[in-house]
Amino acid sequence: MRYSKLFGKTNKNAPHEADSTNARFLIQGGFINQLAAGIFTYLPLGLRVLRKVQKIVRDEMDAVGGQEILMPALIPKQLFETTQRWDSIDVLFKLEGAGGKEFALGATHEEVVTPLAQACVKSYKDLPVMVYQIQDKFRNEARAKSGLLRGREFSMKDLYSFHTSQEDLEAYYDKVLEAYLKIFQRCGLDAIVAEASGGVFSKYSHEFQVATPNGEDIIYLCEDCRYAQNREIAIMKEGDVCPKCQKGSIKEVKAIEVGNIFKLSTRFSDPFDFTVTGEDGLQKPVIMGCYGIGPSRVAGSIVEVHHDERGIIWPKSVAPFDVHLVSLGARDEHVAARILDATQSLYEDFERSGIEVLWDDRDASPGEKFADADLIGIPLRLVISEKTLSADSVEWKERNRPDAHLVPLVDVKKEAKLF
Amino acid sequence: MRYSKLFGKTNKNAPHEADSTNARFLIQGGFINQLAAGIFTYLPLGLRVLRKVQKIVRDEMDAVGGQEILMPALIPKQLFETTQRWDSIDVLFKLEGAGGKEFALGATHEEVVTPLAQACVKSYKDLPVMVYQIQDKFRNEARAKSGLLRGREFSMKDLYSFHTSQEDLEAYYDKVLEAYLKIFQRCGLDAIVAEASGGVFSKYSHEFQVATPNGEDIIYLCEDCRYAQNREIAIMKEGDVCPKCQKGSIKEVKAIEVGNIFKLSTRFSDPFDFTVTGEDGLQKPVIMGCYGIGPSRVAGSIVEVHHDERGIIWPKSVAPFDVHLVSLGARDEHVAARILDATQSLYEDFERSGIEVLWDDRDASPGEKFADADLIGIPLRLVISEKTLSADSVEWKERNRPDAHLVPLVDVKKEAKLF
Repeated sequence: MRYSKLFGKTNKNAPHEADSTNARFLIQGGFINQLAAGIFTYLPLGLRVLRKVQKIVRDEMDAVGGQEILMPALIPKQLFETTQRWDSIDVLFKLEGAGGKEFALGATHEEVVTPLAQACVKSYKDLPVMVYQIQDKFRNEARAKSGLLRGREFSMKDLYSFHTSQEDLEAYYDKVLEAYLKIFQRCGLDAIVAEASGGVFSKYSHEFQVATPNGEDIIYLCEDCRYAQNREIAIMKEGDVCPKCQKGSIKEVKAIEVGNIFKLSTRFSDPFDFTVTGEDGLQKPVIMGCYGIGPSRVAGSIVEVHHDERGIIWPKSVAPFDVHLVSLGARDEHVAARILDATQSLYEDFERSGIEVLWDDRDASPGEKFADADLIGIPLRLVISEKTLSADSVEWKERNRPDAHLVPLVDVKKEAKLF
Repeated sequence: MRYSKLFGKTNKNAPHEADSTNARFLIQGGFINQLAAGIFTYLPLGLRVLRKVQKIVRDEMDAVGGQEILMPALIPKQLFETTQRWDSIDVLFKLEGAGGKEFALGATHEEVVTPLAQACVKSYKDLPVMVYQIQDKFRNEARAKSGLLRGREFSMKDLYSFHTSQEDLEAYYDKVLEAYLKIFQRCGLDAIVAEASGGVFSKYSHEFQVATPNGEDIIYLCEDCRYAQNREIAIMKEGDVCPKCQKGSIKEVKAIEVGNIFKLSTRFSDPFDFTVTGEDGLQKPVIMGCYGIGPSRVAGSIVEVHHDERGIIWPKSVAPFDVHLVSLGARDEHVAARILDATQSLYEDFERSGIEVLWDDRDASPGEKFADADLIGIPLRLVISEKTLSADSVEWKERNRPDAHLVPLVDVKKEAKLF
């Protein structure tokens, strides 16, 4: 992509609506545009990041046997009445359609997926089965804030699992826990597994928390064995000896919740009378689990963790492009033309090799181009200038390292596959 | 994918809610599940089809320079007030959020994309620019019906283009028209370009219509040169001589509208005061075009066109899988085991080669398996039975051809790349 053609450029000034690091850099860098509090448009750069996070999530959900489906956002009121949640979920957006039919916008999909599974699953032989979707969710937050961290409309992956026994659920739950850790690791996030409230049917649920000074949650964390609990249920406090490993010291940590997993047991199968025929021919209750990750919140969290004062430092796995190619101008127009030619040739080589490249082809100063490259945060910056060209080289600078060095052009082309 | 594990199987009986061929076969075949009138869940089979249609649309939008973005579904009321459409779009779902803030659910996105482009585009040098999204739209239809043809929540691709002159818009409009024809052709649809009402700023818009007995629209079509007009604006009638080629005869045809393109001129840039600095330094109005295709409606239309009395006949480009592999049972358990082994081996070969294969591995009768294969409509069915195995062969049957023949197993493996 040529930067001169890209829809959504960087802004010189930090946006006034930015109340957090991720909002500031994502809006200023041209990744997202705020339409209203907690409601954003993804511009091309931001959508590329979101899709990469979603792809990682999809890979790992497929790997644990999840089958992808897509449920609607419009959910008839009667389904929430069945589970008695129409009035108890305080963030439901409610609306009325033609003929006075009432709907909620999906804030969560247990009310859709449970009767759906009921229609598809009849016998214990059909279980376990796991389905997930990646879809936009809606929550009527009184205080939407912190950019992509707490939105009114946001991307969500929700997986639901259906089992014949509590043991089968437990085994699958542990598998998803590992899959989640893999997802966060692939996204460059060091997630802490924290115990949280389990509701009626289980002692604990588990949250995946990323430590950052801007986190809304407080967790208590053992510095040694990484045992952690959300403050809401914690029986430990800062300075305690870890109740688990009996060794480490407990620390209070601010964190962002990027995922959670929950044993639902029969909380939703009961109100829908969702049972299956067991091996003995009798009807058995279906045991459920649910597992959420918000890809847009993950993207925001990555920025909260990976940035410096100049801008974002994307992990390669979710960067909008692999390479930020920068061509500089020259006083002599023949030299300027040679720089453009060399850059064009490298750009085409990259595109042919499937390397995702953003080429800053603007007629702008080196200072402006470098500042924008730092703000956008693509992992590798390659600069072609009069100086580098006279050495048949490009300047190679990694976003997360202070030093730059010259690399022969021919090597860059050869090593293209290494990016 | 093993059919025994697939979430969402075929149903023996046609669904009572099916008021059209596409609803009947898609629900009965386990592609979609109806949650409420015009509101569907895509099951794994249906989602695979939808994603393939979306991928074709995305390819062709990228090819005409479209940049993909993603706008929110929640749109603040004030934007529709600016364009005076809050009360005039009769299918807007309206809702109220925290603090009494009013929103519409996006039925169309001119009100979002125009101020967005205004924020991103300042000078004539930034134009033309084209952005699109593939996103779910919401329309509060009084009579949602005909399966995926008229939904309350449905997949939509909307492209918007911004130009400095009417001539530039016209040239791009023609380019998109060609891209649309390519999209429909790739989806196996023979789309007719019909003139339709152009609104205030242009004489005509253009609709892409697919002739089918179940179509809601009526068009008048020249059988010779394929010139066509929507009945709403038609100046011709059945039996007339074509006013364009002066040769063909005009026929009245029922059709489904699968796309439309529209020259908006300054209809939306005016109310937002969206102008750019021209070459002469003066502010110039921005000229817009918009271009819609509904991928879910396209999927439904494909079924309306490509089916027989037994089920769907998917074009290969949008089929949920390339191959429907069917293993049959045998009385002798050693033979049955050999059939399973041979099928398993072929299944794994296909998966390794990237061929998408659905394996009907159930313990069911040949009749049941063949009926399901016909209903689901995957282009190629390969059967392994005692008879075929004794000839080291598989039975090769294409969904759109009546005859089946034996092909040596070794050839099927070798020709895997041909599928």
